[in-house]
Amino acid sequence: MVELSDQILPPWDAEMVVPLAKHLQTQGVKLHLADAAAAFERIHRAGDAKPRQEGPIRVRLQSGLELEADLVIMSVGVRPENRLAVEANLEVGPRGGIRVNRSMQTSDPDIYAVGDAVEVQHFVDGAGVQIALGGPANRQGRLAAQHLLGRSGHYRVTQGTSIVGLFGMAAAMTGYSEKMLVRAEIPHEKIYVHPGHHAGYYPGAQPISIKLLFCPQTGKVLGAQAVGWEGVDKRIDVLAMAIQAGMTAYDLEEAELAYAPQFGSAKAPANMTGFVAAGVLRGDQPIVHAAALLPMRNDPGTAAEPFVLDVRNADEFAEGHIEGAVNISIDQLRQRLDDVPCDRSVIVYCKVGMRGYLATRLLAQRGYQVANLSGGWTTYGHVAEAINFRPMARTAD
Amino acid sequence: MVELSDQILPPWDAEMVVPLAKHLQTQGVKLHLADAAAAFERIHRAGDAKPRQEGPIRVRLQSGLELEADLVIMSVGVRPENRLAVEANLEVGPRGGIRVNRSMQTSDPDIYAVGDAVEVQHFVDGAGVQIALGGPANRQGRLAAQHLLGRSGHYRVTQGTSIVGLFGMAAAMTGYSEKMLVRAEIPHEKIYVHPGHHAGYYPGAQPISIKLLFCPQTGKVLGAQAVGWEGVDKRIDVLAMAIQAGMTAYDLEEAELAYAPQFGSAKAPANMTGFVAAGVLRGDQPIVHAAALLPMRNDPGTAAEPFVLDVRNADEFAEGHIEGAVNISIDQLRQRLDDVPCDRSVIVYCKVGMRGYLATRLLAQRGYQVANLSGGWTTYGHVAEAINFRPMARTAD
Repeated sequence: MVELSDQILPPWDAEMVVPLAKHLQTQGVKLHLADAAAAFERIHRAGDAKPRQEGPIRVRLQSGLELEADLVIMSVGVRPENRLAVEANLEVGPRGGIRVNRSMQTSDPDIYAVGDAVEVQHFVDGAGVQIALGGPANRQGRLAAQHLLGRSGHYRVTQGTSIVGLFGMAAAMTGYSEKMLVRAEIPHEKIYVHPGHHAGYYPGAQPISIKLLFCPQTGKVLGAQAVGWEGVDKRIDVLAMAIQAGMTAYDLEEAELAYAPQFGSAKAPANMTGFVAAGVLRGDQPIVHAAALLPMRNDPGTAAEPFVLDVRNADEFAEGHIEGAVNISIDQLRQRLDDVPCDRSVIVYCKVGMRGYLATRLLAQRGYQVANLSGGWTTYGHVAEAINFRPMARTAD
Repeated sequence: MVELSDQILPPWDAEMVVPLAKHLQTQGVKLHLADAAAAFERIHRAGDAKPRQEGPIRVRLQSGLELEADLVIMSVGVRPENRLAVEANLEVGPRGGIRVNRSMQTSDPDIYAVGDAVEVQHFVDGAGVQIALGGPANRQGRLAAQHLLGRSGHYRVTQGTSIVGLFGMAAAMTGYSEKMLVRAEIPHEKIYVHPGHHAGYYPGAQPISIKLLFCPQTGKVLGAQAVGWEGVDKRIDVLAMAIQAGMTAYDLEEAELAYAPQFGSAKAPANMTGFVAAGVLRGDQPIVHAAALLPMRNDPGTAAEPFVLDVRNADEFAEGHIEGAVNISIDQLRQRLDDVPCDRSVIVYCKVGMRGYLATRLLAQRGYQVANLSGGWTTYGHVAEAINFRPMARTAD
């Protein structure tokens, strides 16, 4: 049986698409996650002489839920149209993708194949997979042409750079996702930032949520995901170039990108991801991730409970906070150090991680064992909702 | 005497800012290039008892032209405010910039300086220059802080990545300009492309004019400039990353960037610059530049006149073409090869260079000595107007 996704956009990590899933719901889209269509049938009305050939359709889900629809669009993935290849006795992979070497030759070296129908090597574990993207298809076509005209040239990896726009929002990614790294058992660290898409002092800045995955030893960038309203494409393209070039978080700190207030910030989002990741790598900023704080993922009683310190302002705290957190705003922290217990580990957080970073430095320099919640309350919310999304989605019905 | 610029935005190459200068004129901005203010004075009216302290101002230009203004904004460049440094006997450069080493220490190692007031090494010739950019200033501040806290860290070069928006258009650049490369006598080649800012089949695509400067031996990207309406910032940021990473035109061919029709193209502008530049490097596509075709830059009689072939459609040709060009559309070229003289060199062009490339390949494979006009009729127009811009600007008065 096929595993059904409990999130939209399965290639992305679940917490990253939460803002998009919530936005879909505000637009009237009802999400039925981790469920599948079991049957489609015409709706019959009492008095119908014979089965209807048109009109509304009833969709029965595996969960038992029934939905009525005027139009049903099936979107169940991409399968290669490989009939010609199979009839020509060319090798195909388990998912039907035509097997090619790095010069795009099939198992018959006089026959080339390119595009969505070919199997490419997965850039994590080298297994044959189908990745249907227009950019790689174009590159493959050029390479095949070069090779059959007697030139050398090898297809590089498919990096998986992709973007989708939905009701004015965009989600984009490049390189490895966290779930891919976990599956392939590749060591990695991650950070989250939520910068504006341009300078804050210029009107109309919209936040972008960015996740950066990197090697905990070298800082090499492994993957990136971004979700937001404006400028998502630019940030992923910049990070896609960083991955292609084998750049590190330290290189991102030094990236010199175009800045005028309507286009970006003097400290560009790529720089911010570099600053935060390099801070973790250098040990300046120990971080902790939201999942470690979420009760449902904790093994209760395995560790002394940390002291959770919310360094936002009182009004932000009043609007919502992590259960059990104590509020001391960053501006008061120096004066109220006595209120922070020194016999427990301390986890600090703010809205996005910036004030949490300052508090982490302040406490670490005074001997506290302290870590900053990466991405702050914003990422915490995304992670919590990703875990809870199935019930939430059903409530929304 | 200071050399006066005969173009707007002097850091850019003159032909690249022609679309912007023309746009300014359509917005009612009158340009007086290569001229300077000689005097400002209050306008006196007959009957005035004493000199006026307010009201309109007369600006007298060195050319003799007089302009009346309600408001005069002086924008004559950036000079460092270095009084504190000079009073502290710190070394300053010829333009007043505070001298610092790569750790941002001044001539007194206990004093650091960062930002617009410091002199940085020019990334072409290493001379001390003032480059006032927000990104570099931020990086310098971080480096100075690291160094004074006992950490190592060296300031990398200032790459000169910058952008400006004007009446809805944008001009951006990164790395070397052509004029800088010429001045520093660094070998270089250049290509021009004019792709849409997203896929053509999605409504609303706006052209971007991009110039790529690269090493004619290795293909290493040396600089890039872009002018257009939308997505200019993204393309320069991508190319800024390429320069930071030391990438080549061959790497740009392989760049995997985010593609969905509203955000970009499967063959992204960065790919296109890579395809065209790599085509030149591999010898597949000999190119020629517009200046070589402009009569005012030709030494008449030094070479047999080339046959100039316009491969656009007849209606495009009728709207304007290079003087003396013969029109055979790309679709007819195979049938009309007899109309192309084989005893002269051939220069082909189209609107932006794509059909010219196809014609170049077609003719080269038949033994013609042929070159494609880089950037086509579009770049030709920009170059011609850049040379003629002073008279044109005056006519516009």
